[in-house]
Order: sequence, then structure tokens, then C-alpha cells
Amino acid sequence: MSGPDAAKAAVFVQSEQYEGTRIKGPDFNEPQTLESLLQSYERIGFQANGLARAMELVDKMRNWRLSDEPVNPDLQTEELDPEVRANTRCSIFLGYTSNLVSSGLREIIRFLVQHKYVSCLVTTAGGIEEDLIKCLGPTFLAPRGDFNQDGAGLRRRGLNRIGNLLVPNDNYCKFEDWVMPILDKMVEEQETGDKVRWSPSKVIDRLGKEINDESSILYWAHKNQIPVFCPALTDGSLGDMIYFHTYKTETPLSIDIVSDIRRLNDLSIKSKKAGMIILGGGVCKHQIANSMLFRNGADFSVYINTGQEFDGSDSGARPDEAVSWGKIRIDGESVKVYADATLVFPMLVAGTWGKAHWAKEEKERK
Amino acid sequence: MSGPDAAKAAVFVQSEQYEGTRIKGPDFNEPQTLESLLQSYERIGFQANGLARAMELVDKMRNWRLSDEPVNPDLQTEELDPEVRANTRCSIFLGYTSNLVSSGLREIIRFLVQHKYVSCLVTTAGGIEEDLIKCLGPTFLAPRGDFNQDGAGLRRRGLNRIGNLLVPNDNYCKFEDWVMPILDKMVEEQETGDKVRWSPSKVIDRLGKEINDESSILYWAHKNQIPVFCPALTDGSLGDMIYFHTYKTETPLSIDIVSDIRRLNDLSIKSKKAGMIILGGGVCKHQIANSMLFRNGADFSVYINTGQEFDGSDSGARPDEAVSWGKIRIDGESVKVYADATLVFPMLVAGTWGKAHWAKEEKERK
Amino acid sequence: MSGPDAAKAAVFVQSEQYEGTRIKGPDFNEPQTLESLLQSYERIGFQANGLARAMELVDKMRNWRLSDEPVNPDLQTEELDPEVRANTRCSIFLGYTSNLVSSGLREIIRFLVQHKYVSCLVTTAGGIEEDLIKCLGPTFLAPRGDFNQDGAGLRRRGLNRIGNLLVPNDNYCKFEDWVMPILDKMVEEQETGDKVRWSPSKVIDRLGKEINDESSILYWAHKNQIPVFCPALTDGSLGDMIYFHTYKTETPLSIDIVSDIRRLNDLSIKSKKAGMIILGGGVCKHQIANSMLFRNGADFSVYINTGQEFDGSDSGARPDEAVSWGKIRIDGESVKVYADATLVFPMLVAGTWGKAHWAKEEKERK
Amino acid sequence: MSGPDAAKAAVFVQSEQYEGTRIKGPDFNEPQTLESLLQSYERIGFQANGLARAMELVDKMRNWRLSDEPVNPDLQTEELDPEVRANTRCSIFLGYTSNLVSSGLREIIRFLVQHKYVSCLVTTAGGIEEDLIKCLGPTFLAPRGDFNQDGAGLRRRGLNRIGNLLVPNDNYCKFEDWVMPILDKMVEEQETGDKVRWSPSKVIDRLGKEINDESSILYWAHKNQIPVFCPALTDGSLGDMIYFHTYKTETPLSIDIVSDIRRLNDLSIKSKKAGMIILGGGVCKHQIANSMLFRNGADFSVYINTGQEFDGSDSGARPDEAVSWGKIRIDGESVKVYADATLVFPMLVAGTWGKAHWAKEEKERK
Repeated sequence: MSGPDAAKAAVFVQSEQYEGTRIKGPDFNEPQTLESLLQSYERIGFQANGLARAMELVDKMRNWRLSDEPVNPDLQTEELDPEVRANTRCSIFLGYTSNLVSSGLREIIRFLVQHKYVSCLVTTAGGIEEDLIKCLGPTFLAPRGDFNQDGAGLRRRGLNRIGNLLVPNDNYCKFEDWVMPILDKMVEEQETGDKVRWSPSKVIDRLGKEINDESSILYWAHKNQIPVFCPALTDGSLGDMIYFHTYKTETPLSIDIVSDIRRLNDLSIKSKKAGMIILGGGVCKHQIANSMLFRNGADFSVYINTGQEFDGSDSGARPDEAVSWGKIRIDGESVKVYADATLVFPMLVAGTWGKAHWAKEEKERK
Repeated sequence: MSGPDAAKAAVFVQSEQYEGTRIKGPDFNEPQTLESLLQSYERIGFQANGLARAMELVDKMRNWRLSDEPVNPDLQTEELDPEVRANTRCSIFLGYTSNLVSSGLREIIRFLVQHKYVSCLVTTAGGIEEDLIKCLGPTFLAPRGDFNQDGAGLRRRGLNRIGNLLVPNDNYCKFEDWVMPILDKMVEEQETGDKVRWSPSKVIDRLGKEINDESSILYWAHKNQIPVFCPALTDGSLGDMIYFHTYKTETPLSIDIVSDIRRLNDLSIKSKKAGMIILGGGVCKHQIANSMLFRNGADFSVYINTGQEFDGSDSGARPDEAVSWGKIRIDGESVKVYADATLVFPMLVAGTWGKAHWAKEEKERK
Repeated sequence: MSGPDAAKAAVFVQSEQYEGTRIKGPDFNEPQTLESLLQSYERIGFQANGLARAMELVDKMRNWRLSDEPVNPDLQTEELDPEVRANTRCSIFLGYTSNLVSSGLREIIRFLVQHKYVSCLVTTAGGIEEDLIKCLGPTFLAPRGDFNQDGAGLRRRGLNRIGNLLVPNDNYCKFEDWVMPILDKMVEEQETGDKVRWSPSKVIDRLGKEINDESSILYWAHKNQIPVFCPALTDGSLGDMIYFHTYKTETPLSIDIVSDIRRLNDLSIKSKKAGMIILGGGVCKHQIANSMLFRNGADFSVYINTGQEFDGSDSGARPDEAVSWGKIRIDGESVKVYADATLVFPMLVAGTWGKAHWAKEEKERK
Repeated sequence: MSGPDAAKAAVFVQSEQYEGTRIKGPDFNEPQTLESLLQSYERIGFQANGLARAMELVDKMRNWRLSDEPVNPDLQTEELDPEVRANTRCSIFLGYTSNLVSSGLREIIRFLVQHKYVSCLVTTAGGIEEDLIKCLGPTFLAPRGDFNQDGAGLRRRGLNRIGNLLVPNDNYCKFEDWVMPILDKMVEEQETGDKVRWSPSKVIDRLGKEINDESSILYWAHKNQIPVFCPALTDGSLGDMIYFHTYKTETPLSIDIVSDIRRLNDLSIKSKKAGMIILGGGVCKHQIANSMLFRNGADFSVYINTGQEFDGSDSGARPDEAVSWGKIRIDGESVKVYADATLVFPMLVAGTWGKAHWAKEEKERK
């Protein structure tokens, strides 16, 4: 073919017959409800579709029962009991970074823990202490939601910045006042009587008990006996307090991370079905995914973060990288939503657990 | 101070008394509506707060009237007339990239144009042709919303990928069939009679007229005489058609970009108040912002995109960079929401124009 | 298998025998040269490997000759001539965004154009005017290379910010003084004599001639007759000048974009081999790739940008998306380097054209 | 002013006289060496300038001596001794994520540790085990450096993907063989004789001793007694082994994280000057910065990562956020380079320690 003809042939390649979901946005000539708007995301494309798929996978996690599966005769007797089967659910491992507890997502995570909608939590040190500190003093939005407050000026005023949030340093002073006597008691229990061997999850459970505040995630985790894992528990303000405490006590506190890795991995192994919901990256993402390896991969996986894969970080890796490691099952379902979780997680929870919870409440009210 | 004391002093810096918006997420123990959920974003922080602020600024754009301002005696007589003043509104310049028309945001943009909620549009070539092509054939979601379909396989099947969307190449063949006779007519009008001097905005207006389809943004732009600017009109499938057309016609079509820059900047100058809403980067972002320079800056600015400033690109620049250029007023209000627009724009429109539109409809129905 | 055994089986999956490039960083116990360091990138992984692959592809573009290919008897006679074949090279289409001309990459691009190492350029309006303006006044680094200078303060001082660069607004005033008389002449030539029909590439060629400054990219492009495309030529300071000029002239300048799309696509079609090197996104990226469709795709493609695919933008799309469109050949070779081009492009050029150029100079000196 | 005049006034704002570093790229008409090319980055702008500033700050860390400072009479006697003063250096805290040890940066980090150019290391579990595992089996580059290998296919072949790297799962099996007997010994030492109380840094030191391989970072860290911190030591393959080991041993290993937070913070407090170099985000970034709080902030800080601040994560936070917390001194110097560390760190080390090291070697050779 000569140039122009070849050009035409290249430009006007014929396509095979194709059918699939057609892209079409919501019709705003019709009034929208929360439900109709969220539903419309399925046909918007790009990350709107990612959110729609995340809702689909969370609903699968919520609704799965062992009785949905064909009976596997290799199972233990108990698991063959129809009632047990009908009540055996998917374990949901929820991970989140510290900053999300500083944000208003804390109240949404608390809702999930309060109603036992999740099976365990994994977070970083800030994810623990920020929950407690918020019971002692408020976190503020920076003026105009601005991320560009001058750092030196803030330091002089004793205001710590987290993105576009400000936390007065006095909150950390209040935290010291609150936590130091508890650390004393922990050391005492470590050295006397049953000689408690502290692990991060045990320390966290104790803090949740002590805070005794219904606004707290950890309070409800303690009350509902939902384990909270945080291997790097010393990497934050709580670590600062523990550090100072080592200089005040004869015998320092000891926090063992081995017993927690055992506890977490055992939880993974004994789950008949497992889902991951991970907000952000770092340890909370890797630790959950790593535990899934022990059951040959998670069944349902929802990642929400802003990380990118090009730098080879685990934080930015797509779910398909976890498949190669066996952290997500070869036949598992997964989605990564590329967004700041504060935009997406409220909608995700509203469109799944929230919707079901409100419908149930509505029904009970009648 | 010795080491440990200095350490204590550094860690327990006292903070000044601070008061501001307190961070607190929505209480999902109470049922949420679309309105209550969107309202809760104001106190979530990070980008959730960005969306809340974008809603606030869009409402300012929507509600501003010249009569809100003190009377400026330097104004022309007409503008002193109270009725004129009460009806003079903020001009809203809406920019968007091509891919967003491929996505389901097309229907939302169409809603805004259909009801004359915006004053002018700026987009790139794909933003024009994708709107028209969607009247000729559907765009599909890729299987599982996946961005990783194999390119070679798709090419062999004649399926063009746009992120996680697929467009059969036949749609572009249909577009050729549709547009070629129109190009013939345009050349004829250029060479005979009044000798039309085509500019991108005139070509687009004509295409909107010809498509004559209520699902189309351009149809409504034509009908409502809302100008659509697109300086790089040849940079896409329409350019491909125009290219082939130059080989089919004795006199080629001529499209002049000078008359459009005059039209756009004049629109900016004569606006009593001006707001920018820009989805994505590139020419649609720069072109609108540049036109604002002629009025010493926009009053209200909402950017929604995923670009970052670190590479010095205009696409990724924060609003504050535009302030330095006089493209946003020194006392203007602005926000950048860091997110894929498909996640955010449906909520932004639902919480502002949508809410007002549905309330008005509701009222009229009664 | 029971829990622990199944866990072991999952964790200790056996791998197939695998061989490939082994990862190993440079040995800094040995002194490094520019060449040895760049070579080491091939075995570092992640984006270091991306840069190594970009160097490999640029070298393929540089070194390809038609005589490397088997003789195709369908070719025109001329192309069967061994000498013609030995001198027919790969066309290299270089695209770059405006900000990169504001940065120090301008000098590197000028080097490539001065020595005819590239075949054509595609950029945006700023990519044109910033090159010219730099001949009239300097661009500065912001203090400490900071991206956070206060916009209002800068506006009051007349300093325009581009990322961490500052351009005094006086430079644009000087640009007005310089360009207005040239616009006058252009209008004159449009209206009299041969009645020049201006296109962006013709305007740019003329500006390159007029600036007559060896530090300028456009000067060398004019001198070496390398076409420079810029469909949205009015979207920047040059557009501002053209806008003001329309108020000063009886007949306004007219700039036609149709003749340029023909010129660009023809260039693509007649290339025996074609490579793309695209720094940044937006029109410069899409326009080059789109022209490649007319030859059924580019042979070699190097993208360097910070865009991400998740928002479905063309700017962020991976090369594999272009394969689906026929913009990159199914058997073409491509790489995307995820980085700010200012970090990568100096090394890329140094390790390819630079190395060859310096070796040749060295040889000639002897 | 009327519209057009006001427009002119806005566009042609006069600028104040400004002087500063002028932007100008390298002149490739002159041959470049590694040194001249790196030097040119200072005047390129954007992230090129970021790299130049990182080199400047690393050189400040390298060259600082206590004797450079005015004598502070409050200091301890020893620190008043001129010889001590001339030999007291800046402590350099180097943090890096796991993936960078998988990449070829491992060899560069090893170079720094081998020659005692850094004072301590902070990393995550993978940053420990990948160094050891590389002594047992190689890590490969994925074909064509591609990030898009199919996860399911890789899992079936037992190949684990890390970005564009592949690690055969057999390497982890070899790691098990190697580490299990060491864990046995550690438990024995914990239970008998001096009853070692293991902390992550002690475990790591022991593993560095046992690996006894000059290609290993940890080998040299052990040999040079440079502490390596890793609070979440169980979050990776080493954790998997420790997990399985708890089922094989009567008394499980116990690893206490409290003693390490004390060790790290003490190191920070006793540093006369302190610099941070942090590659990537997560725990390795936060842990180092948090330790700096105890000395009222780091003096010099270099961040290299791809994180963004808009999601409020610590990983993406700019240095100025750390200033607000007192983790960087109010008068400290800092830079964040927005790039994948594999692109930047080789150049950063080559242009600072490398250059000095090679010059010294050269001198000694003569």
C-alpha cells in the first residue's frame, strides 16, 4: 500500500464486535439520592469505577457465609454442622495509617469496630495514640484547609501539622499525664503476680480499656475483643512516653513482637474466607498482606491509597503484585482505588455497611 | 539543660491556645443522606475537606450577583440599574480534558450546559470528538475495570483503550462517515457566499448543531450559545479527518486560532466576576487561567486533578502559582482537590447545582 | 492439608529455574565515570532501569539506517539505492512541555537541534515564547529552590513563579516590545504580495529567524529547517500579544492550524522509521503519538513524565495504551520513565548523543 | 481604567529588580564528566535542583566538625578539648525501605556502611532479610524491566515480583534453611547463661555476624558496630520464619522493642550535630524523624521519595511539616527530592562520598 492508503488502513482498522458495560454517567435531570449516586459510579469509569468495585467486594466480604460454599468433606466435623456453616463468616482485616485516625475517618472506623463489622485491625503507632489523644483534646483543621502553614511559625506556637490538620502540642502533654501511670502499672504487672508478657496487641487492648471512652476505636476494640496489631508500636508519641518511662523505672517495660506475629498469622490461617481492606501503605499494608500468605492468599482485597508502583515500593504495588507472592489468591478478587482515603472511605462504608445498618435500624424501629 | 531535660523540653513544648474547626467524622450510627454525608466532608480533613471547600466555592460562583457588591460609581450606566445588577452573575469557565468526556462525567457536564449553569467551556480535541462519537456508538468499561489489558491484543481486535475504558475503532469509522460531508459543507461556506472564516469555536458550534442529539454536550452548547474553545482542535480524531479531507478537497479547510483567543479573552474582561472550574491539566487548564490574567485574576478557582507541582508543570501547579501570575486575584478564593475527577465531580455537582436544581424542581412540582 | 502444613506449602512454594539479568548496583569501591555510572543503571532496577532502557532506545533511534533492514522490493526505486539506504535514518520526534524550556533543559534541547539530532519538535505555546524570552531576560531559581514562595507577595513584586523558578514580569514586557513589530510585518505579508497563509509552524520559524540568537532553540530550528509544531500557539504570552495586536491592527493576523496537521502527519508517513521522545504530557505528547497512527505506530518510544494512568488521562497513559490505538507498533519498543525530566533528560542525552558527539569531537581534534 | 487598559495594566505589571541564581543548563558542546554534569544540576531547576541541594546538604553532613562551631562553655570538659572537637562529627541517620535493598542500591548502602560513612540505619523487615537473602540467591530484573508481568502466572512459577524485579521463591526456602538454626541458638542464649534479652537491633547484629559475607550491608554494620534499627522486624519473611519457629520450639523467641527505642533516641540526643537521609517513606522515615525530636530537630535533612503531601500521610509530608513538630530544627536545612531513589541516590552518593573517596584513594595511590 502506498503512504496515504496505508495511513487510512491504519487509522480505520475494523473492530471486532464488542459488548460489555456501557459508560454512562448519572442523569442529574433526575434527583439523586446517596444510593443512586453511588450506584452510578459503576458506569462512570476510571476511579469512580474503582470505588464501585470496592463496594462490590466489601459487600461480598460482608455477605459471604461458609454455607455458600459446597461442603468440603475434609473439613473438621464442626464445620459440617449447617448452623455453624451458616454463621461462619469472612474475616475482615482492616488496615489504616496514622493520619487517617487524625482525620475524621476515625469516627467511621469506630463505627465498624463498635458493631463488630471487622475482625482485626492493623495500624502504626500514630494510629493507636491519635485515637487516645483525641479523647483528651481536639484536632483542628488548618485555616482554609491549607497545607502550606509555615513550619517554623507553627513550632513556635506549639502547633503540630499533619497535612492540613493542626494538633496542639498540649494534647501530647495531656497524653503523657494520662499514660505514664498506666505504664507504671504495666511494669508492675510484668514483674509481679502472673508476670504479664506484653505484646503490642496486649498493650493496645489495655489502653483501650483504660481510655473508657465511647468515641474511641480502641475502647470498642477492647470491648468487642477485636485484636489490634501494631508491630512498630514504639514509633510515635507512645514510644516517646515509653522512652521517658525507661528512665523513671527500675525495670523497663518489655514489649515482645513475636507473640503478636503468631497471633496475627494464626488468625489468618483459621479464617475460612478472608478479606483485606487497607487504607494507605507502609507496615499496615504489608503486615496484613503478609499474613494472608499463610492461607495461600486473601479472597477479597480492597486497597485505597495514593502510592504508585513505579518506585517498586510495597506501598504503591498493585494487587497483582501480591498475587505473585501468594498474598492474594490466584482466583481472588481485588481492586485498588487510587485516591486519598478521606474522599473514598466514607462513601465506601456508607454504600455497604452503612446502607445495611440503616436499613436494619429502620426495620427494627417499625 | 542536660540531654534528657532538653529532650523533655523539646518534646513537651507548650502550645498557644488554639481554636478553629474541629475534626470530627460523620456519625454512621445515624442514617446518612447524600446531603448529610457531603456536609460531613468539611470536618474530615485532607482531600475530603478539599471537596467541601470546592462545594463552598462553587456555591459562591452560583450565588453571586453584582447587586451583592457596593455600587461602584465608575461603572457604566447600565450596570447601575438595580435590575441589571440583580441579574448580573459570575461567569463560570469550565475546563476539562478529553478523557472525562470518554468517562461518565460527560452526562454531568451536559447537565450543566443544558441548564446554562456555566458560561463557557474549554477542552482539548478529544473533548470535542468523544462527545460526538458517543452519539454514534458506545464506549465500554474494560473487563473488571482493569487498566492492564494487553495493548497488542486490543489493537488486533480494533479496541482502543482509554485507561479502563474501551472504544471500538468502528466508532471512529462512523465518525468519519458522519463528519466528512460536514467538512465538505464547511469548505464550501468558506469559499463561497459570506466566506465564513472558521475558528475552532465556530467549527465546534457547527458540529453541535449538526449532531442534533440531546445526549450531547455540544448540542446544548450550540442551543444555548455557550462558546466552546479548543485551540488545538486538530490534535485528535477530528484532526485525522481534517487531514484526510485536505487530500479530498481542492481548497483545504482553514481554521484560525486568533479570532478565538480574542473571543475568549474578551469574555474574561467583560465578566463582572469570574470563576474557574478546571478538571485535569494541559491546555484546558492553562488556557482558562491565562484568560483570567486580562481581568487581573479569577475570583473563585476550583482545580481538580492528579498533577503534582514538583516537576514545575502548569498542570500540577497549585492555585498559589497562578496568584503570582495574576491569573487568580490576590484576594481570590481557591482550592485544588487532588483526585481523579470521576470520583469528585459527581459529588461536587450533586452538592451544589444538583441540590439547588432538584429543590427547585420539587418546589415547581408542588 | 491441615492449617500449619498448608501454610508451609503456601509460603515455601518451589520456583522454576529462572535466569535473567541479575540485579547488582555499581561498586563504589571502584572510581566511577559518567559512563560507568550510567551503565550501572541497567542493573539497579525500578526507574534506574527505565533510564537505562531509554538510553538503549535512543541509541537505536540514533543508529538505525534503512540499510539495516532487508530490501523490500515494493519500495520506490530511490530507496533501493544502497547509498540512499545507508543514509536514510530514523526520524526522531521530540516533544516537550513549556516548563522544560523555562528550566535548564532548554540548553540541552538546543544542542540537539543545533546538531540536527532530531527531526521535528512539538511543544506548547510556553515552549515557544519562553525560548525567545530567555534571549531578552534571565529566568531565576527561587531562593533555596523552594516551591512555596507566597503567590500574593510575588505578584506584588511582579515575579511570576514556575515551580521553583521565578521570571520577572519585565521579561514579558520586553517580549511585547520585541514581538509587536514582527506581528505588524506578519500581518503585512498576510495581506500583501504573496499573501502568506500563516500556520503555527510558519510563525515559529519566523520568530526563530528574527530572534537571531545562538542560545535559542528556535534560532537553530530555523537555521536547520527543523519544523516546530504548536497547535495551541495562542495559549500563552504569545497569545496575549496576538490578542492585544488584534486591537491595534485593521486586519488581524490569521493563524491556520489545518496546514500544520497536514505537515506533521505527512512527516510521519514518509519516515522509514520513527522514534518518539516525549518529555511531559498534554498536547505535545498526544500530538506526536497521534501522528504516528498514520504510519501504524512508532518504532521506538521514550516517555519521560510524572503522570499516572489511574485517572485515564492521555498524559499519564503507559506506552501500552498507545499500542492499542496503533500509535506505537505492536512490535515497537518503548519505555516510560516515571520522573521529572530535569533529573533524567541530562543523563539520557549525555549517555547517548553526548557520548557520541564528544567522542567524535575528540577524534577530530587528534 | 476601561477593560482593555485594565487588561494591559494587569498583563504588563512591572517587576522589582531581582537577582539570584540564573537558570542555565549544561553546555553539551563541551564534553561532560560526571562531576561537571552533576554540578550543572544546580542551575537546571525543578528536581534537578533538588538533587543539587541534596548533594550540598550531604556535603555539609560529611564535612561538619564540632570545631567549626564557637566554643560553648556549657559543654562537658571533654568537648572543649580541641582534638575531640576536631574529631566530633555529624551523626548521619540513614533510612531506607525494603525495596531499595532488593534493588541495586544495596551495593551503594553497603559502600556507605563499609566505610563508616553513616552512623546508624533504620529500615523495615524486608530491608533486613533481602540483604541476607541476596547472599543466598540472586534477584533478577523482570523481562524488559516490565512492571506488568501477570501475577497468577508468576505465582504458578514461584516467582515473586517486586516492581520490575523478580525473586525466585526458592531464595526464601534457602533463607529458611539458613536462619532456622540461628533462631534455635538465639532461643538457647535467651534461656540459658546470660539470658540474652533480644531486641531487633541485637537480632540484626547477630544475623550480620552470621552471614559473614562482604557483599552484605548487615555484615559491615556488624563489623563496624553501626546499629541497625527495625521496630517491625517481624513484618516480612524473617517474621514468617520466626512464626514457624514458635511452633518448633518449647520456648518461643522474644524480641523486645522497648530497648531499641531507648537506644535510638539516646543516639539522637548525644549527637552534637545530626543529619537525616531518608529513602522512601513509612516507618523508616517516621522513626528517624521522631528520634530527632529529642534533640529539638535535625540539622540537615534529605528526603528522597515519591510520596505526596495531599493525603496527609507522614510518608508524603514535606520537611516543613517536620519543622512544625520539632523534628527538623527551625534553622535546619532540608530538601525533599521527588523521585524514585534508584534514579537519584547513585548520583547523590557519587557526587559526595564517592567523589571524596575516589580522590583520597587516588592520592594514596600516588
